[in-house]
Amino acid sequence: MAFLNDNYLKLRAGYLFPEISRRVAAFCEAHPEAAKRLIRCGIGDVTEPLPAAVREAMHGAIDELGERATFRGYGPEQGYEFLRHAIAENDFRAKGIEVADDEIFISDGSKCDCGNILDILGSQNRIAITDPVYPVYVDTNVMAGHTGNADDSGAYAGLHYLPCTAENGFVPEPPAEAVDVVYLCFPNNPTGAVATRAQLAAWVAYALKHHALLLFDAAYEAYISDPTIPHSIYEIPGARECAIEFRSFSKNGGFTGTRCAFTVVPKTLLASTLAGEKLPLHPLWSRRSSTKFNGVSYPVQRGAEALYSDAGLAQVAGLVAHYMGNAAILTTAARGAGMTVFGGVNAPYIWVRTPNGETSWEIFDHFLQKLNVVITPGSGFGSNGEGFFRISAFNSRANAGEVARRIRADAV
Amino acid sequence: MAFLNDNYLKLRAGYLFPEISRRVAAFCEAHPEAAKRLIRCGIGDVTEPLPAAVREAMHGAIDELGERATFRGYGPEQGYEFLRHAIAENDFRAKGIEVADDEIFISDGSKCDCGNILDILGSQNRIAITDPVYPVYVDTNVMAGHTGNADDSGAYAGLHYLPCTAENGFVPEPPAEAVDVVYLCFPNNPTGAVATRAQLAAWVAYALKHHALLLFDAAYEAYISDPTIPHSIYEIPGARECAIEFRSFSKNGGFTGTRCAFTVVPKTLLASTLAGEKLPLHPLWSRRSSTKFNGVSYPVQRGAEALYSDAGLAQVAGLVAHYMGNAAILTTAARGAGMTVFGGVNAPYIWVRTPNGETSWEIFDHFLQKLNVVITPGSGFGSNGEGFFRISAFNSRANAGEVARRIRADAV
Repeated sequence: MAFLNDNYLKLRAGYLFPEISRRVAAFCEAHPEAAKRLIRCGIGDVTEPLPAAVREAMHGAIDELGERATFRGYGPEQGYEFLRHAIAENDFRAKGIEVADDEIFISDGSKCDCGNILDILGSQNRIAITDPVYPVYVDTNVMAGHTGNADDSGAYAGLHYLPCTAENGFVPEPPAEAVDVVYLCFPNNPTGAVATRAQLAAWVAYALKHHALLLFDAAYEAYISDPTIPHSIYEIPGARECAIEFRSFSKNGGFTGTRCAFTVVPKTLLASTLAGEKLPLHPLWSRRSSTKFNGVSYPVQRGAEALYSDAGLAQVAGLVAHYMGNAAILTTAARGAGMTVFGGVNAPYIWVRTPNGETSWEIFDHFLQKLNVVITPGSGFGSNGEGFFRISAFNSRANAGEVARRIRADAV
Repeated sequence: MAFLNDNYLKLRAGYLFPEISRRVAAFCEAHPEAAKRLIRCGIGDVTEPLPAAVREAMHGAIDELGERATFRGYGPEQGYEFLRHAIAENDFRAKGIEVADDEIFISDGSKCDCGNILDILGSQNRIAITDPVYPVYVDTNVMAGHTGNADDSGAYAGLHYLPCTAENGFVPEPPAEAVDVVYLCFPNNPTGAVATRAQLAAWVAYALKHHALLLFDAAYEAYISDPTIPHSIYEIPGARECAIEFRSFSKNGGFTGTRCAFTVVPKTLLASTLAGEKLPLHPLWSRRSSTKFNGVSYPVQRGAEALYSDAGLAQVAGLVAHYMGNAAILTTAARGAGMTVFGGVNAPYIWVRTPNGETSWEIFDHFLQKLNVVITPGSGFGSNGEGFFRISAFNSRANAGEVARRIRADAV
């Protein structure tokens, strides 16, 4: 008799975004006129065209595939050398950060990598996550059987939650006790918070002391404007011995529909066998790639490479400036309406306290029904998100301006 | 202390293709002149240009991404409806096979899906695989902790091996005992064997009797020329209650570098919880997709859709005819040289008995050193592959002809 993986049955039915979709669909069906003016600031999906440099490179790569002499079949599962090199050189070595080309693993998404990384880790690890948190970190651990059931607040038994609150600036300190694996995401989704060099150094010191592994999600690093804030965990000495970093082209290059990301696994990063022997994780991740992956589409890898050309870099800077312009407009409007606003400076997310003590879903319904704007309820990211909501700056300038106008009008 | 997944340490160091690469590289370095005439018939990778219909559709999709009005960000993780529909309609319903659009899950590769499917299955399942076998089925089970260690022949404790020999036509009968999950691949990689309707019906009957799950890999179905041979497991009544089917655009549309595949999970397919309750696997796979995947690149999905246009269908037929023409040339040459040849009729692989009792690696070295042709040693696919080798028909016509000439010359 074939058995299913019972751990999937522990997952809470409502993954956040499907529940948002359900409420939006119900509202639009009931109010077709209001639906026409609906503006979505919910899911963190880019809206602006794919950069011209990327499109040009992809067109060229597709033409190459049309000729036998330049046709390419299976590529290296870990990614083409041209892209691994461009990344290591531009994102790391040019900034004085030690990362070798073959420590870069090209993938089709950070979400995939954040989940798949558990494949190479032992099931006995004690896992720490922030609260609020990107739900994928939690759900992939539930699926892998690393937790018990969820309680009424949505917290799973067996996970170590690190509260992120206004009091700690949404950047938790390392816990007093030892954990084995810690998920950190800075600039943070959903709070828009960033970690200072000192805060990251404290985490690296903690990890080195406890031989813990930091899973550092830097998908939003392109949005950092403060020059004192690290873009990479590897800017902290010692991080090559304790951290894996996830990066993505989704939010800088607008690749959410094009699909390319990468993960950095330093060869100096060790983990323990059951018998207590310390071995590098790099060959395990490489083996996983060879066996369970076939590499990213060749035209997509050429498109990602083009992000590092002069034209590509300028176009990415333009996209970041566009979305951060939206963030400023939205932040100003929310503050003007008397709301307490976090984030939005080094991240494309604005994290807002509900103005009158409403719950997150109450403010969601208010925005949907009265402003016809879709935001994301903070409680969907964890119990410490209750009483907050997230506004995404990923939108056209016109939409951002219109949302700002509606927020101001609603407050009058 | 962070722990690694000890199961990875059970993997045998030499995944087949890296070992082939190592020997080829060593030979080429030692014999630079011979290296110039090297022809690769090893790995099953396509060589001919990506079909024009695909390229045209991909170019169009990239242009769409260049305009805000037609830009697409995150798509549905399970695949765009346009592609799921095209597949269900053309590959199944048009042939009288019941498959709904939303039973099709678009992915970036069958290799990924064959590995990832284990995520939704219980770890207590007894797993059966054929021998010889596509190594990914085995290695992903090793990584997931479903096996003990390998013995000297490479067989892992805990797996149930089904010998495929010349005597059974390389199509094993269901075992006498009950197993829970069975990997079947027809047309077969590496043997090129196909299963008749009666043989598949026997497997479906076995699965229904034992509530077992068939994981049916049909990546090579486009190469079936015999009209009596089923292309899909779902041609067998009852298969919707016991089988998942993996399909790929790699070998029909030449997508090995472009990356697109799909998996069929019928909503009528159930598996058991620990408590013995039978539940459908479809929502588990859908949830896995939502949580650990972000869908296939939009231009790639448009390219795959174009394979079902009139032009695309004609171009795929041309590619299949090309590779099967190679298969005929290579089969004739090997037979002419006195070798015993299997496969090559309904599959792009030719499975050859070593002519003088050599081991698989001895004939590999002979072909490499004397013929300067890379083939795949059968023993790399399992102990029952010993004494055989695989010639891939994926090549240019000129190369296939030249390999045939060298085989004939070697036999004289």
